Amino acid sequence: MAEFYADMRDIRFNLFDFLNVGALTQAERFKDLDVEVMNDVLDMAYTQAAEVLFPVNASGDQEGVKLVDGTPRLPKGFKEAYKIFSESGWNGLSIPAEEGGQGFPRTLHIAAQELFTAANVNFMFTPGLTHGALGLVMEYGTADQKALYFERMLNGEWSGTMCLTEPAAGTAVPDLKSTASPIEGKPGFYKIKGQKIFISSGDQDITDNIVHMVLARVDGDPEDHRGVSLFIVPKMKVDARGKILGRNDVTCVGIEHKLGIHGSATCSLAFGDDGDCEGWLLGGQGEGLRIMFRMMNEARIAVGLQGVAQSGLAYEWSVRYAKERIQGSRLADSRKANPERVAIIEHPDVKRMLMHMRAITQGGRAMMLYGAYCMDQAETTSDEKEEKRYMHQVEILTPIIKAWCSDEGFKACELGVQVHGGYGYIREYGVEQLLRDVKIASIYEGTNGVQAMDLLGRKISRGGGVMMMTMLNEVNKLTNGPAKDGPFKAEIEALGKARDTLAATAMGFGQTMMKGDVDYPAFHAASFLQMFGDTIVAWLLIRQALIAAKLYDKRLQSKQVDPVDEHIGQFLVDDDEARYLHGKIATARYFVHNILPRVKARGAGIKSGDRSALDMVF
Amino acid sequence: MAEFYADMRDIRFNLFDFLNVGALTQAERFKDLDVEVMNDVLDMAYTQAAEVLFPVNASGDQEGVKLVDGTPRLPKGFKEAYKIFSESGWNGLSIPAEEGGQGFPRTLHIAAQELFTAANVNFMFTPGLTHGALGLVMEYGTADQKALYFERMLNGEWSGTMCLTEPAAGTAVPDLKSTASPIEGKPGFYKIKGQKIFISSGDQDITDNIVHMVLARVDGDPEDHRGVSLFIVPKMKVDARGKILGRNDVTCVGIEHKLGIHGSATCSLAFGDDGDCEGWLLGGQGEGLRIMFRMMNEARIAVGLQGVAQSGLAYEWSVRYAKERIQGSRLADSRKANPERVAIIEHPDVKRMLMHMRAITQGGRAMMLYGAYCMDQAETTSDEKEEKRYMHQVEILTPIIKAWCSDEGFKACELGVQVHGGYGYIREYGVEQLLRDVKIASIYEGTNGVQAMDLLGRKISRGGGVMMMTMLNEVNKLTNGPAKDGPFKAEIEALGKARDTLAATAMGFGQTMMKGDVDYPAFHAASFLQMFGDTIVAWLLIRQALIAAKLYDKRLQSKQVDPVDEHIGQFLVDDDEARYLHGKIATARYFVHNILPRVKARGAGIKSGDRSALDMVF
Repeated sequence: MAEFYADMRDIRFNLFDFLNVGALTQAERFKDLDVEVMNDVLDMAYTQAAEVLFPVNASGDQEGVKLVDGTPRLPKGFKEAYKIFSESGWNGLSIPAEEGGQGFPRTLHIAAQELFTAANVNFMFTPGLTHGALGLVMEYGTADQKALYFERMLNGEWSGTMCLTEPAAGTAVPDLKSTASPIEGKPGFYKIKGQKIFISSGDQDITDNIVHMVLARVDGDPEDHRGVSLFIVPKMKVDARGKILGRNDVTCVGIEHKLGIHGSATCSLAFGDDGDCEGWLLGGQGEGLRIMFRMMNEARIAVGLQGVAQSGLAYEWSVRYAKERIQGSRLADSRKANPERVAIIEHPDVKRMLMHMRAITQGGRAMMLYGAYCMDQAETTSDEKEEKRYMHQVEILTPIIKAWCSDEGFKACELGVQVHGGYGYIREYGVEQLLRDVKIASIYEGTNGVQAMDLLGRKISRGGGVMMMTMLNEVNKLTNGPAKDGPFKAEIEALGKARDTLAATAMGFGQTMMKGDVDYPAFHAASFLQMFGDTIVAWLLIRQALIAAKLYDKRLQSKQVDPVDEHIGQFLVDDDEARYLHGKIATARYFVHNILPRVKARGAGIKSGDRSALDMVF
Repeated sequence: MAEFYADMRDIRFNLFDFLNVGALTQAERFKDLDVEVMNDVLDMAYTQAAEVLFPVNASGDQEGVKLVDGTPRLPKGFKEAYKIFSESGWNGLSIPAEEGGQGFPRTLHIAAQELFTAANVNFMFTPGLTHGALGLVMEYGTADQKALYFERMLNGEWSGTMCLTEPAAGTAVPDLKSTASPIEGKPGFYKIKGQKIFISSGDQDITDNIVHMVLARVDGDPEDHRGVSLFIVPKMKVDARGKILGRNDVTCVGIEHKLGIHGSATCSLAFGDDGDCEGWLLGGQGEGLRIMFRMMNEARIAVGLQGVAQSGLAYEWSVRYAKERIQGSRLADSRKANPERVAIIEHPDVKRMLMHMRAITQGGRAMMLYGAYCMDQAETTSDEKEEKRYMHQVEILTPIIKAWCSDEGFKACELGVQVHGGYGYIREYGVEQLLRDVKIASIYEGTNGVQAMDLLGRKISRGGGVMMMTMLNEVNKLTNGPAKDGPFKAEIEALGKARDTLAATAMGFGQTMMKGDVDYPAFHAASFLQMFGDTIVAWLLIRQALIAAKLYDKRLQSKQVDPVDEHIGQFLVDDDEARYLHGKIATARYFVHNILPRVKARGAGIKSGDRSALDMVF
């Protein structure tokens, strides 16, 4: 049976060596924190992931969710794990202390969440959706609403869900048909009626109550986005003190049989089939979509996180398998009689797959944590210019983090299966579960096609392209800075070319759209998003390599080792820190030389002007 | 519930409009055939795929295989389907008439097999492996062996398997531990002892006997590839007339729980646990590997076929779903109040995904059928030069067809899931099964990494690079031919550049290897194979587009339609043939402009000389 591993050094490198998250404690909001306590939180998160969540991961996948008397029964051990998880305070890790949370930066929350998600993504649906619901109640709830729902979700007594999708309203959320009719004599309360589908952890048997955040249209409101309102709809009706009175009219009418996330209940929910479903308006009438969108950056980064988390675990397993599995002999020995048998990690093609997985994982992690860090900075800085600089980056990076990390994470998990050969295809080694589970990340929270259109249609063009300019300015700091003549000269030059291709492509899109052709850029939007992601990841990995190179030199000096010493290989085997730093540099170089050239290839496709697919009759 | 569809027009286009398979009937071997009968065979194959195999596909996946009293029970309906399938003569479709087969070209067999595999890949493991065993007995069996085993496998009474892999001998087949000890007084017969794993359809309950082709080492033979022999080991002992006498000592000790192919029994088999397993030497002692390799081209093309078949069905389903699913409005209408809701096929990003799937499917199909056609030509031509020209192409294309079609087929199925959105992730729509099932094709019959090494280490360098030169000469016929100044000028130029990059990369590999560095080329072998595949597919698709363009013009003339007529769109909707031809051209252009640029990007990575991953200590 597989064990749990995580690259804690890389996570710490991102937070402390690269982003310098410790400096956030200069902000009023984080003034009681320090690096040591953040490190402790990471350690605790690792322990909880390894000891509480991971042990019920494979079993949860195999057992799956069953509908028992109309209620989805989550896998064995999930209830106990949720109790421990909630009581440990993880639900409120980045919720401000004055609201009752732990008050840590989002960056740290995201780092911890990677560990939890890697350990058991199925389990994480309940706390993940609860976290979303918590945020809505915290930001938009009245005092009464907060008093009733906030703390109970925070402490894990109750859970939360997000109910957007309907059979005919997937991507097109405003097309929803659910209705809300005012209840006379009970201001703010409505009778809810409608059907929601694909509701993650939409019903389960591990919490006493479930607080649904439901989008519906108040009778008579406009039939478009302006008519969408948000309601708190608990599974169980409660009195003002939270005492459970009995069922609200919400029923789980089915659960999905899925490719993966078998341990998570994906529910169809019927609201008000018997005309007795009560909901409580949250925020202003007609403001449902606006409110939901406010939560979106964080939610979308969390989906990209799934890609990083699962590719990360796939990498950890694959590298260990490759070191243990003996098969064949070294290529250089292939003409010897009876050559020594070696571990498959000695085979260059296996190294290639591992390196690719590693580059995707570390690149995705760098981008996602950078995105979270920009959110923290934007929220805590007192400088308005700085706030803008960071928020522009958050806005433009959000769809990229979501789509790039989920698509590339799927690819990394595929390579993980491939490294394991036949054993990758069977259940025992766990990596096939990662492949099944991670695929959903490209689909939900807005498909990756929707992300590409968000990037192209909203983020690139808004404000005269200010978000993109802000982002590229950041990249320029590296390409125009002093490092351009150092040991990463070739890599920084390649980055500069990729940035030029990216900028020229965006410009070309602008010209095409000005001529009234929106379809051609939209056709290539996904390709453009990938180009953008590749460029940003290369930028981050090179910046990290610059830091790693300095730390590596220091390490060697402190150990009195010469980098060109013939025993350097053995030193790297023995010294975890030097090996990590050396590998960090190699990862950046691999990414730049073997993945980044895709930017030019994609740019060429876009530049071709070929409209075959658009003109074709399918 | 999903239905079965196949692009019969594209299959016929490949066979008759492009490859001109009808001309094969000039060969003595196929002299009794004609195009009409081949067309009839395709129709029959479609009917059988749709009416016999497909109806038990999804149910077979869901029911899976269960071990009942030590025997794997195949899903409901498989036994009946196998009876119909065998009695229809499909097992021997390309086996020469004088051997009792149907005597059709391999190209037609491969075309039919695409339909069967698309309809039910799980079912196809039994006939597929039987086909392999049949070939071995036909080519290498003594008269007695043929009399006993050949016809019974051909008519479906018995089935066959291939038993190569052992726990410590996967890719490294010669490391096997299974032994064969001569039985005194029974020349040619041996006691077999050993364990085999991952045996496809290795045991089942649908045929009376199972004829295992087992690799083992005769006592005292060399411990390397020279010591590997092949044995016929039936599940049930039989007398000389084929009467079943009782169990041979072969036991199914377990079946695998897998990512996909749930309806196929992947078995661990124990041979001779009680010391009573009899096997019959097939071919010469110590010739087991050589014999197996003889069957390999066909077997590997058949695995590439799985990628084509499943991406083909994923495409057919996705395009239909995209035409039916209403969601959102046209981009151009996005500023209108309450714009008309449209089918998602109107969204450019959906068109992009469909076109990509289509390009992969049609490109893979073209390459696989071309490979099979070269086999037919090599086997039937009386001109020795021509035989060589075709065999060189078969040799070099085999690993490319296997790896390119399976890897890209997986990608196409992933896009199929993505086109379906949330519905792609759930069981009902079938496409998630395709994604799970197709993944195995990258792993078995030599992982795709092994294919890349076969291409680089055996095919490119052997005979001073003659295979590659032969292949590129074929490409040059197009790039230097009259078409280069025609309507596909831009595409042919792009192909020429890709060919140059490919050739330069191979040359660079040669120089690196001459310096004694085999690891660097090996590190990039998979990338090189992809480049080669992209180039060959572009070459074939452009050639097909040239033909399609002529047929399209003719079609328009015959219907008296002007290609720039404003009603051309509606004409294409109404006229299946014109729509197919128009789409064929679009597919080639899409592939060349949007996929082929990868060749340069990959070439750049190889040219960089970056050795980070090779020098890294993981």
